[in-house]
Amino acid sequence: MLRISIAHPEAEARERWCAALSQLLPAASVEGWRPGAEPADYAVSWYPEPGFFGGQTRLRALFSAGAGVDHLLRHPDLPSALPIVRLEDAGMAEQMVEYCLHEVLRVQRRVNDYEALQRERRWEELRSLRREELPIGVFGLGVLGEQVARAFAALGYPVRGFSRSPKAIDGVECFDDRHGLRAFLEGCRVLVLLAPLTPDTRDLFDAERLGWLPQGAWLVNVARGGLVVDEALLAAADSGRLAGATLDVFREEPLPAAHPFWGHPRIRMTPHVSAVTLPEVSARQVAAKIEALERGEPVSGLVDRRRGY
Amino acid sequence: MLRISIAHPEAEARERWCAALSQLLPAASVEGWRPGAEPADYAVSWYPEPGFFGGQTRLRALFSAGAGVDHLLRHPDLPSALPIVRLEDAGMAEQMVEYCLHEVLRVQRRVNDYEALQRERRWEELRSLRREELPIGVFGLGVLGEQVARAFAALGYPVRGFSRSPKAIDGVECFDDRHGLRAFLEGCRVLVLLAPLTPDTRDLFDAERLGWLPQGAWLVNVARGGLVVDEALLAAADSGRLAGATLDVFREEPLPAAHPFWGHPRIRMTPHVSAVTLPEVSARQVAAKIEALERGEPVSGLVDRRRGY
Repeated sequence: MLRISIAHPEAEARERWCAALSQLLPAASVEGWRPGAEPADYAVSWYPEPGFFGGQTRLRALFSAGAGVDHLLRHPDLPSALPIVRLEDAGMAEQMVEYCLHEVLRVQRRVNDYEALQRERRWEELRSLRREELPIGVFGLGVLGEQVARAFAALGYPVRGFSRSPKAIDGVECFDDRHGLRAFLEGCRVLVLLAPLTPDTRDLFDAERLGWLPQGAWLVNVARGGLVVDEALLAAADSGRLAGATLDVFREEPLPAAHPFWGHPRIRMTPHVSAVTLPEVSARQVAAKIEALERGEPVSGLVDRRRGY
Repeated sequence: MLRISIAHPEAEARERWCAALSQLLPAASVEGWRPGAEPADYAVSWYPEPGFFGGQTRLRALFSAGAGVDHLLRHPDLPSALPIVRLEDAGMAEQMVEYCLHEVLRVQRRVNDYEALQRERRWEELRSLRREELPIGVFGLGVLGEQVARAFAALGYPVRGFSRSPKAIDGVECFDDRHGLRAFLEGCRVLVLLAPLTPDTRDLFDAERLGWLPQGAWLVNVARGGLVVDEALLAAADSGRLAGATLDVFREEPLPAAHPFWGHPRIRMTPHVSAVTLPEVSARQVAAKIEALERGEPVSGLVDRRRGY
């Protein structure tokens, strides 16, 4: 019998994954992992607990319960040849679009400024931007980045995207390494980070790169905290060079209470919730991929460890 | 020669209307109104200054520079037989959708709550709503209300609309007087007011009607302040019966600095900017209607004074 192990730290998520996968693969045994459990054929995990890999003598693939896999690749016990499969969209793109659109509308409709006027009890009309005046940049055109770029283009915003390798997306001005990052950043009124954390992207948004954005731009980081140098972002926000930033991800999570982001007037924060994994939707994707692998067919979303995603 | 008078209190808007209409109707004389000006054939006005109507001996129609006309109908000098034509959409629906969508996303993605958590430096994940869990009610299904209802339905929200007379809109559950207001209000998680101010709608949203909304609902008023009884709204917000309200319109504008709305923690305010008139877009609509009237053809948007819109 096919054994599937759910190695997830949260009990509620673990139970939802078990219930959903059991229903989709009734012939399989699906169980939450615990020390001493029998070796599994497949595992679903956000970050396996210590001891997990020691007992896995026949694991054929590990499914990440998230779109990013940088944390998994840093796991000290990860077997070097184990195939890792990341989640692709699985209901996350829709949530990501909502999150980013909310922040874009704040910039477009001057919500920060109107909130300040209300605090001062001042009645004053400000000029809003029209959608065509607000170019949105999406850094990273993977499954999620492409969906977000397409959604903003469909809404009538000018959209530009950056990816390492050349891409072509209808309605999106696509930049890659041939054009250079600077040409891309110079045209972003709002910059949305949606790239994986890899050796190439770590610390990429430092003082120099943030300085390539137009004066008064707004940064939205829904990727990984490690893409942005915290001190450089704070300096750019303090000086007014950036109008501000919305951060859903951080170098350390939970963000320590003493970190200056919490109290900064130009920084908006949420606790890594821009797009949460929906076990029921994700389980359908994982179940279909397990069935394909069992038939000896290739699956999409296989992680290239050298590339880092 | 056809004479068109622009009676608008703001110099910038007056000049933009004059420039746009002159270009569209090159054979006409288009001028900003001033005391002693020659009588006009058509006028465009938000609210004519004292003395305006006295000199108008041949005015064939008055075009409102806004969607609402309640202020015009209260003008003491308004000739009783003068046809009044209101603006229809003219770029306002798009702005209205943006404004309302921003507020809906705040409710859906728990933005108020996350802002409070940031102030307290607390890292805590909250459950967001999926779009299908967030029924949006649109009160008033005129040109703007229908567009807003359609836009939310297209985005995947359950949408219900209320109008005095029966309507049918794809993807929108339509209520009217036969069903009664209570049946409509009981299902609105967010209620958007988009109806004209008339004797029927004045003070309609009092303590009783606000009490028909579900516990924790959110009110968005982008219509007219007179639809809502201020004291009833304050009481509902104070008690937590309503989660809060976003108000763009008020009984008195500018809202006096002493009004309790300004400082209320559950009330968000903007100074009547949810959808501003775009003179260039609106002028195309007005020019086309002037040409139709000159050819003796009927035009849409003619105000029924008994109805009040």
